[in-house]
Amino acid sequence: MRKILKENERLDDLQINNLKIIQNKNGFCFGIDSIILSEFAKDIKKKTKIIDLGTGTGILGLLLIAKLDIENVLGVEVQPDVADMAVRSIKINNLEDKFKILNCDVKDIYFHVDRESFDVVVSNPPYKKLNTGGTNENRKKLISRHEILADIFDFIEASKYVLKDKGSLYMVHRPERLSDIVYGLRKNNIEPKIIRFVYSKQDSEEAKLVLIKAVKNGGQFLKILKPLFIYKNDGNYTEEIFNIYNIK
Amino acid sequence: MRKILKENERLDDLQINNLKIIQNKNGFCFGIDSIILSEFAKDIKKKTKIIDLGTGTGILGLLLIAKLDIENVLGVEVQPDVADMAVRSIKINNLEDKFKILNCDVKDIYFHVDRESFDVVVSNPPYKKLNTGGTNENRKKLISRHEILADIFDFIEASKYVLKDKGSLYMVHRPERLSDIVYGLRKNNIEPKIIRFVYSKQDSEEAKLVLIKAVKNGGQFLKILKPLFIYKNDGNYTEEIFNIYNIK
Repeated sequence: MRKILKENERLDDLQINNLKIIQNKNGFCFGIDSIILSEFAKDIKKKTKIIDLGTGTGILGLLLIAKLDIENVLGVEVQPDVADMAVRSIKINNLEDKFKILNCDVKDIYFHVDRESFDVVVSNPPYKKLNTGGTNENRKKLISRHEILADIFDFIEASKYVLKDKGSLYMVHRPERLSDIVYGLRKNNIEPKIIRFVYSKQDSEEAKLVLIKAVKNGGQFLKILKPLFIYKNDGNYTEEIFNIYNIK
Repeated sequence: MRKILKENERLDDLQINNLKIIQNKNGFCFGIDSIILSEFAKDIKKKTKIIDLGTGTGILGLLLIAKLDIENVLGVEVQPDVADMAVRSIKINNLEDKFKILNCDVKDIYFHVDRESFDVVVSNPPYKKLNTGGTNENRKKLISRHEILADIFDFIEASKYVLKDKGSLYMVHRPERLSDIVYGLRKNNIEPKIIRFVYSKQDSEEAKLVLIKAVKNGGQFLKILKPLFIYKNDGNYTEEIFNIYNIK
């Protein structure tokens, strides 16, 4: 196993179906965001053709395959070395027939993928606007976290292009960007249908993440689900999060 | 007191500052929406010039005057008999110098009110799209509840017209209309800044109301506050609602 890892990389156990993932010790490591998004997207059917825009190390694709038995995922990642980590993780898990990686910018998706060729988009895109927040990170983390190469509108436009009519988009993002997302989706005829806000604790003053399901050319009716709390006020995981982590 | 009431009207005690309000027994009576909105808007300063778009029987203006000691409210109401009820309620409470009523459609606001002449808009507009939900109500209730005369975009455009630069809009609405509202606000350069969702109970599956504060020409940064629960799971009011009702 050693030789499959490059310098500064480590192999983590996903604790689901014995899956492993390669992550860079100094790069962006997956967080609870992807785990919560994979749970939020659990109504995706097995035969669905999924594209993961901004797949990073491939965490979301791996989780969807493990949890929902999905057979067809294309992960799009702009950073060559990160895309390469995803390719090697897929190989370690023997999932080459179910999960492919495309190394390109979402803004160039038009050159690589057919129009309206996917049933579902999943995405955990960079959260922060360029020139906001701490930028004293290395470039790899910076690209994963900030809108350096593509912004939220690029992700939404790429989604519009790849999604079939009535296809679904599942996204996790920061609440501070909700207006950008809702405005961008509505402008592109991808209608928000279900939104759920995630709070760190039950007494947190504000939401930390937002989960969005939207449908291309969908009708205008939106549900705001009950809040998802990560921790109880005593610092332990809530029952819901505990169940997500122990789902298999 | 009797002669001030017309047929089918009753005089209700607002339980704040000894204020009274005239309501029609068969018409739309104020609910918890206006009370929660007046609490959400409690950062409005005393000297603020406020316009209430779709004031109905004047409940919101009365609450803001009672709670925040506001001195200058203009309530806009399209239905002549409802506007007349508001005028009489204002008279009963001796608030003629602080609270005026303008009987016109929000779509005609341009003919009656100067551009950029208000610091704050408050609004509890009709919630439902035309031709949705039960319409076997009398016309008065129908106009209060459904977008018969003016829709959410008319309310937002009127807000843009009357608000000064950096003026605030406080609105309560249904979560199902959130995309319409956010899209309409962004298009009109009224940027959502604070959103809070209201749930009936702590274990309700979805939100029932949404409170929005937006700022004309405001910067793009949005906070989603912690959820507001009306009832505890045992059916009693939560402490927060209990405190709102007992604020004075």
